[in-house]
Amino acid sequence: MNMLNRREALKLGSAALGAAVVSSAGEAAALPVERSPEVARWEIFHYTVRGPAEGNPFVDVELKAAFRQGHREVEVTGFYDGAGVYMVRFMPDTVGEWSFTTRSNVKELDGRSGTFRVVEAKPGVHGPVRVANTHHFAYEDGTPYFPFGTTSYAWVHQSEALQEETLHTLKGAPFNKIRMCVFPKHYEYNHNEPPFYPFPHTGAKPGDADWKNDFTRFNPEFFEHIEHRLADLQALNIEADLILFHPYDRWGYQSMPADVDDRYLRYVLARFSAFRNVWWSMANEYDLMKAKRTSDFDRLFHIVEMEDPYAHLRSIHYSVVAYDYSRPWVTHGCMQSAKFDVATLYLADWRKPVLFDEVQYEGNLNKRWGNLSGDEMTRRFWLGVINGCYVTHGETLLDADSEMSENTTPTLWWSHGGTLKGTSPAQIAFLRRLVEESAKSSGGVVVRAGLEADAKPYYLNATAYEQDKKTARTILYFFDDHAPIWYEFPLPAGTFKAEYIDPMEMTITPVGGTHTGKATIRLSGKPFRGMRFTAV
Amino acid sequence: MNMLNRREALKLGSAALGAAVVSSAGEAAALPVERSPEVARWEIFHYTVRGPAEGNPFVDVELKAAFRQGHREVEVTGFYDGAGVYMVRFMPDTVGEWSFTTRSNVKELDGRSGTFRVVEAKPGVHGPVRVANTHHFAYEDGTPYFPFGTTSYAWVHQSEALQEETLHTLKGAPFNKIRMCVFPKHYEYNHNEPPFYPFPHTGAKPGDADWKNDFTRFNPEFFEHIEHRLADLQALNIEADLILFHPYDRWGYQSMPADVDDRYLRYVLARFSAFRNVWWSMANEYDLMKAKRTSDFDRLFHIVEMEDPYAHLRSIHYSVVAYDYSRPWVTHGCMQSAKFDVATLYLADWRKPVLFDEVQYEGNLNKRWGNLSGDEMTRRFWLGVINGCYVTHGETLLDADSEMSENTTPTLWWSHGGTLKGTSPAQIAFLRRLVEESAKSSGGVVVRAGLEADAKPYYLNATAYEQDKKTARTILYFFDDHAPIWYEFPLPAGTFKAEYIDPMEMTITPVGGTHTGKATIRLSGKPFRGMRFTAV
Repeated sequence: MNMLNRREALKLGSAALGAAVVSSAGEAAALPVERSPEVARWEIFHYTVRGPAEGNPFVDVELKAAFRQGHREVEVTGFYDGAGVYMVRFMPDTVGEWSFTTRSNVKELDGRSGTFRVVEAKPGVHGPVRVANTHHFAYEDGTPYFPFGTTSYAWVHQSEALQEETLHTLKGAPFNKIRMCVFPKHYEYNHNEPPFYPFPHTGAKPGDADWKNDFTRFNPEFFEHIEHRLADLQALNIEADLILFHPYDRWGYQSMPADVDDRYLRYVLARFSAFRNVWWSMANEYDLMKAKRTSDFDRLFHIVEMEDPYAHLRSIHYSVVAYDYSRPWVTHGCMQSAKFDVATLYLADWRKPVLFDEVQYEGNLNKRWGNLSGDEMTRRFWLGVINGCYVTHGETLLDADSEMSENTTPTLWWSHGGTLKGTSPAQIAFLRRLVEESAKSSGGVVVRAGLEADAKPYYLNATAYEQDKKTARTILYFFDDHAPIWYEFPLPAGTFKAEYIDPMEMTITPVGGTHTGKATIRLSGKPFRGMRFTAV
Repeated sequence: MNMLNRREALKLGSAALGAAVVSSAGEAAALPVERSPEVARWEIFHYTVRGPAEGNPFVDVELKAAFRQGHREVEVTGFYDGAGVYMVRFMPDTVGEWSFTTRSNVKELDGRSGTFRVVEAKPGVHGPVRVANTHHFAYEDGTPYFPFGTTSYAWVHQSEALQEETLHTLKGAPFNKIRMCVFPKHYEYNHNEPPFYPFPHTGAKPGDADWKNDFTRFNPEFFEHIEHRLADLQALNIEADLILFHPYDRWGYQSMPADVDDRYLRYVLARFSAFRNVWWSMANEYDLMKAKRTSDFDRLFHIVEMEDPYAHLRSIHYSVVAYDYSRPWVTHGCMQSAKFDVATLYLADWRKPVLFDEVQYEGNLNKRWGNLSGDEMTRRFWLGVINGCYVTHGETLLDADSEMSENTTPTLWWSHGGTLKGTSPAQIAFLRRLVEESAKSSGGVVVRAGLEADAKPYYLNATAYEQDKKTARTILYFFDDHAPIWYEFPLPAGTFKAEYIDPMEMTITPVGGTHTGKATIRLSGKPFRGMRFTAV
């Protein structure tokens, strides 16, 4: 092992990034690694090797590695990390002995090999999130995953201190997914320059006369920085719903030539795919990207399908014209909408999970999309869940005495991260608890991921969310704006206890007694209440 | 003038029913009325005459009258009122001398004539309501009419005391339209028998072994009773949105043969059309009337078109499948829906006014449709108005300690009338005031009926309701669940004062100063607020 540069050393020191094997051009190409390193299931095995730094390795050098276990082989694409360093990352999904061999158009990178051992997953690690049970999700080991996401588009493009504050906030927040952009963001209230740019450039900042991107190369620090944030999120059990393209741009990234888009995408895939907590969102508001057509996004989807060895979740976000979520390469719907009344149609048509990923934000902005009350945000979470879908949070709360201008630079969670100030996160935590308890109550052992198999949720006075109409052990109702003073709840076979739920005050109050058949129960006559039945 | 029976005398004593000429078979057929009676414009001129009582005059006797003024002639159908009494009613719409001549297949009813004088309308009487300005309404004299309706389906079929209580309530309520059924109603919480039945019958009540309707005759007391209620409503300036058919039935009225439907409809038209405050609603939830097809309702619409000399407003109400409101014989949409987000599509497609006549009810029932909070009811009124439409109220508030059964007989405004207990009527009164003030502010003299000519309302952060985008003198905003702390309002040419509106607390608070161009104003950051700009 020869001397590594500072960034490589940093990487090796990052336990979150998993085990690593490091070779160098100075060693014999065929030299086996003496002691196989160990890596836990679903962590990252890193292979780092020195190679040529001259020319433009980003486009000149090809590097692949075949990872093998028995007769199984998984091909993985490596990448150039700058300064003569090449890397291959691999996320093993089975325990046991694995080996690998590289393949390259550069002699000193070709035919290198090694072995390593994959041990059981670390406690609390369940693998990547997969679609499960048609409309729901589970981690790869079968543990249910219920997305309760948030949005912070440009948090990784803020100051180091603010990023740390964001991570600290996330540690105490109820969110297990975050929608975030790879590229920096230009928008109202988003006027700062990012610490890193994805491409080398001339000029200090866009708008300068000499600003020009070199789209033939990448800036590895930019990507490495995001990798550290992916690892940070992984440590918090948060899925990174990575937005690969978006129209909020002053740097030139929204209108790159197709070959640059493709190379950027392949580079992202080579670097990030091995992170188990990555989801691919092809774009935010793809239909606002006027330099692209829908067929461009189809092409980009296909690249992701071909280049991601782990088949992470794939979707795309729209502004006005929805992408066709029925297409086979889309794993789930990603709605900018609060039309929960048609959610069951989406579920029935697409037979995929549906995330209402943008339902507007808790906030007080001068923008239609950014000034919901906290209770309304929470209500939308309930409506989504009750209709068999999932919902994503966002927050745009200005201080009450803020200047009345969009050219200010406040810290708004939705884009910058920082601290959550709203009232909905606590209420969302309460709902998440109810949903997760509901899943756990299914006989004590969770064997299926979703709360309901294939049945669409059905409507009563309230709307009921059930695991299964006939065998439900937990039934969750939300009355929305309906405010009856009594109601007859049709129960499945069995005996149930009943609890009044107040989603906004976050209280659970026993009704008393047990209930069978048609349970007629007196209610508050107040809106936005819920009810939970649990089999006893 | 010969002796009249008790009911005729009552009629003559009813000032609300207008002037009357009474002839009898005992007088010479050609005998002119000695002194022409006077009737005010848009009141009812009654011509009453004795004729045969034998046989079945309801089907055997035809009676028409031609009312003439100069070269103008209006043909009106008379009706048999029982006990040998025949009547013709006419609502004159112009002042001056009128004459009439009858035509009948019965000699003593044929060729009778008379004259009468029509004088100026009484103070506050503006004529029937008409469609005006594409999407709006005005009385026939051009005075704007903004429907702020309520619903009390079966109030005329309750006890006399309860009906009087209903009228007393309406006197103090903000409603200028009431949706009400001609036929009595059978439904949850509706189990009482009506005081009158439309047809003679055997048996005391439906369900009795000997219950049988005689569909070849009518029960005039039933219709006369409703006429008195129409007159009572007229005195309160309330439009009677009369529902002619409905499926809530235990008496046999929802599945009569087509010829009976037609005869019933013609009888209603002959009796009620002369009331200036009548609107025709062909049915409530027409699509739930399984004995009829849509083409039956088309036929009934055509009968109304042909038999109503005054062309009162015509529509029809649905449950699930909307009638095609674009049809030329429908004057306005009648939605059972709260989908205000598509209201502008209805307005653009149909080019008619749209009433959201059933948006669910303020209440606390064990029914999806009857348990909105008062604030939610009010919110729906605002959303309707702001989207260029109108909304109808209803109330289904059980006492908090009511028995938990639908077989009880509480007094619920929605069906029985009585007293209003909810919080929305006061808030609706507040909105009605804002809308009517908005119309009045258009230069001080109202020359057009609607608040906006042809422009669809447009969307900002809030949704703005304007008379005209360029020349608006009053602009009303409603923020719904949006809660900005500042907003930039684009104003038309001119200088405006601004007022904060709280639709729920019913307050109007001046912002201070005057505003032109783009008015940037600090707001509460609380949802469900409004803003009014008025030109100074």
